[in-house]
Amino acid sequence: MHRFEADQIAIIGPGLLGGSIGLALRQSGYRGRLVGFARRATTAEQAVKRGCIDTAAPSLVEAVRGSDFVILCTPVSVILQQLADIAPVVGDRTVITDVGSTKRSIVAIAEQHLREPGQFVGSHPMAGGSDTGPEAARANLFDHKPCIVTPTGITDPEAVRRVERFWLQLGMHVHRMSVNQHDDAVARISHLPHALAFVLVDLAHRYGGLEVASTGFSQTTRIAKGDPKLWTDIFLDNRDHLLRNLTAWSQGIEEFRRLVASGDRQTLQSFIAAAQSARVAWPEPENNGNGKLPEPT
Amino acid sequence: MHRFEADQIAIIGPGLLGGSIGLALRQSGYRGRLVGFARRATTAEQAVKRGCIDTAAPSLVEAVRGSDFVILCTPVSVILQQLADIAPVVGDRTVITDVGSTKRSIVAIAEQHLREPGQFVGSHPMAGGSDTGPEAARANLFDHKPCIVTPTGITDPEAVRRVERFWLQLGMHVHRMSVNQHDDAVARISHLPHALAFVLVDLAHRYGGLEVASTGFSQTTRIAKGDPKLWTDIFLDNRDHLLRNLTAWSQGIEEFRRLVASGDRQTLQSFIAAAQSARVAWPEPENNGNGKLPEPT
Repeated sequence: MHRFEADQIAIIGPGLLGGSIGLALRQSGYRGRLVGFARRATTAEQAVKRGCIDTAAPSLVEAVRGSDFVILCTPVSVILQQLADIAPVVGDRTVITDVGSTKRSIVAIAEQHLREPGQFVGSHPMAGGSDTGPEAARANLFDHKPCIVTPTGITDPEAVRRVERFWLQLGMHVHRMSVNQHDDAVARISHLPHALAFVLVDLAHRYGGLEVASTGFSQTTRIAKGDPKLWTDIFLDNRDHLLRNLTAWSQGIEEFRRLVASGDRQTLQSFIAAAQSARVAWPEPENNGNGKLPEPT
Repeated sequence: MHRFEADQIAIIGPGLLGGSIGLALRQSGYRGRLVGFARRATTAEQAVKRGCIDTAAPSLVEAVRGSDFVILCTPVSVILQQLADIAPVVGDRTVITDVGSTKRSIVAIAEQHLREPGQFVGSHPMAGGSDTGPEAARANLFDHKPCIVTPTGITDPEAVRRVERFWLQLGMHVHRMSVNQHDDAVARISHLPHALAFVLVDLAHRYGGLEVASTGFSQTTRIAKGDPKLWTDIFLDNRDHLLRNLTAWSQGIEEFRRLVASGDRQTLQSFIAAAQSARVAWPEPENNGNGKLPEPT
């Protein structure tokens, strides 16, 4: 496998994800320049201080100009705006990717605005955490986690390979999917679980019991600590797929309710045993999300 | 506060919970005898070897005879049977408690069978883990976790105090609730989350996406690794409360679905923000569940 190479990478939004990308790139041996841009000056300063980026550009456009690889690490609605803003200054051979949790609208806007739409490759690294900002960034955030890359029919194959090499170099397992496959799969394994966690906390908060809730509840609802604006963006941007998966969810719950109501012990236990085996057999990603923050490398 | 004292404690079922009780008792300075009984000889041997109990009794009745404190640490359906089995040999001043996840049927059976029904006090320590057996036992399993104690109108107040002292000595936060309050609260904050985790794994397994699922999915569904027989027992034994909470759940999901479908960004974000604040404000129990197993003390 070829190594990922670039002379200058622009990290737009050097927070938890963007900042960790900078740290992980350095740890992987990347020797080019790392330019960052953050909307808030304190974020940019902190990112420089922690070694996530070498320098903070004074503007979005300045960060992108002269970079041969650009990665957008802001919330979905901001990525949509930034793609339009950077389009006039992106070099023709510059590869652009992002970390947005939904892909349809991002890919559509990118292909609509960029002069070389084939140079955009949607990415979704399945890594994160409830802490935010460059303070929470760490070089091992991506280790052994899945990353979905979503080329379309017009994406330049060399740009896809370059983006895949980028994530591989950060230690991720790369999966190539269509935009539609991605949005459906993540609606089910990420957006739906977040929705369930928010609704579950609301229920316990409304009807009581939080004072005796323990580890199981804590783990199940940890993702309900996610940023409300970020998750509103994601749910609405992926509305169609989320609604379809919510329908499948309600059917699943109704089947389960009927099993419990029937008192049919054997069928209920078979259902639970099948789910339990599937969960046990699943090669769980290493949980490096609760460890201590490593020092910046 | 008075210290918990007993000359001989019988731990029936020295697995993860029962074994951890033995280790925690010793660590807390308990100096009396610890007698155990396990249905499988290898479990009993392992429990002795790890120091969870001093000796393994040859039978359930032998373990209980001569003990002035008995704790039943087996699955709900087994506890029901064991309460009937031990009734003839329990000393009149022996206090009996259990760790069952549902309380109505256990308390009913205890009060029906025991010669001194006032000496039975239902308990539910909110601690556990997906690993089972005395190999997984550890002295800090109960530290800072909630424990619910469920006396009824006929429970001897001194027995209640003794059981509460027992859990306090193991480091737990004790909450006194009626049987009904307990069964409703745990249906919501424990049984419902387990049901959701099983259904979520089933959905992802059936429709795909597990290959790109990551940390969030892993945490949300960790409790789906629970023992199928144990959870079938719990769901059916607490059927009424679980069904009522499943109905409230479906209403909550329907409200959420409507919010997403409406595209009303402001109301959706307010809902998420309220749940997120409640989760952040919740004094999460210390997660000592993923740490290394301490050596037996």
